[in-house]
Amino acid sequence: MPLSLENRPEPPYYAVIFTSLRSSSDSDEYSQLARRMVELASQQPGYLGMTSFRNPDGLGVTISYWADWAAIANWRTHAEHRLAQKQGREKLYEEFRIEVCRVEDHSAYKRAPND
Amino acid sequence: MPLSLENRPEPPYYAVIFTSLRSSSDSDEYSQLARRMVELASQQPGYLGMTSFRNPDGLGVTISYWADWAAIANWRTHAEHRLAQKQGREKLYEEFRIEVCRVEDHSAYKRAPND
Repeated sequence: MPLSLENRPEPPYYAVIFTSLRSSSDSDEYSQLARRMVELASQQPGYLGMTSFRNPDGLGVTISYWADWAAIANWRTHAEHRLAQKQGREKLYEEFRIEVCRVEDHSAYKRAPND
Repeated sequence: MPLSLENRPEPPYYAVIFTSLRSSSDSDEYSQLARRMVELASQQPGYLGMTSFRNPDGLGVTISYWADWAAIANWRTHAEHRLAQKQGREKLYEEFRIEVCRVEDHSAYKRAPND
C-alpha cells in the first residue's frame, strides 16, 4: 500500500520536493546513481520514505520524507550524497528546484475492495 | 523555465502534495477532468502553480502551490472541485494521499548555457 499513512508519524514531519529536468546524459549511469541514493537515504536516521516520478519529457520529481530538520541537514551533507549532488549539477540535470517543507496535515483514501 | 523560482514568493508559502494511484477507469474522462481542474485552480486567489507527474504503473503526484492557508481552504471547498473530488473517490482513483505543507526554504539550479 504505497499511499497509506502507515509509515508516517503524525504531523508535523518534513518533505523535500526535488523537481528536476534531466539532461541527455547516460541513462544507465543516472539509474545506477539514483538507486544508490535511495538505498543510502533509507539508511539515514529520521528517513520516512521516498517517492519518484518522471514524465516522458524528462521532467520529474522525487519527494523524500524526514522526521525532523536534523535528518534533512544530515542527509544534505552526507559525503557520498554530496558527491552525487556534484554529478547532478555537472551532468545529470539541466535544472532543478529544491523545496523544503514542513508537513502540517495529511489524509489518505483507499477504495473499499467491494466498490 | 519550469523549475525557476520566478513565480514563487519568498518562503513561507504552501504546497499540497496529492499522491494517487489511478483506477482503470476511462482515460479520456480522467484527462478532461484533470485539465479542467488545472484551469480552475489557476483562477483561484493565491494560486502559485501546479506540477503533475505519472509513472507508467499508474502512480502519480500533483503538487499545487498556494500563497497561504486561506487559498488552500478556498480551493478545497470550491463547489466544482468538490464534485471532482467525489468523482475521484468514486471511480478515478484506487487510493490517494494528501499532504499539506508549509514550504520553509527553496533553491534552484540551472546549468549555464556553455556548460
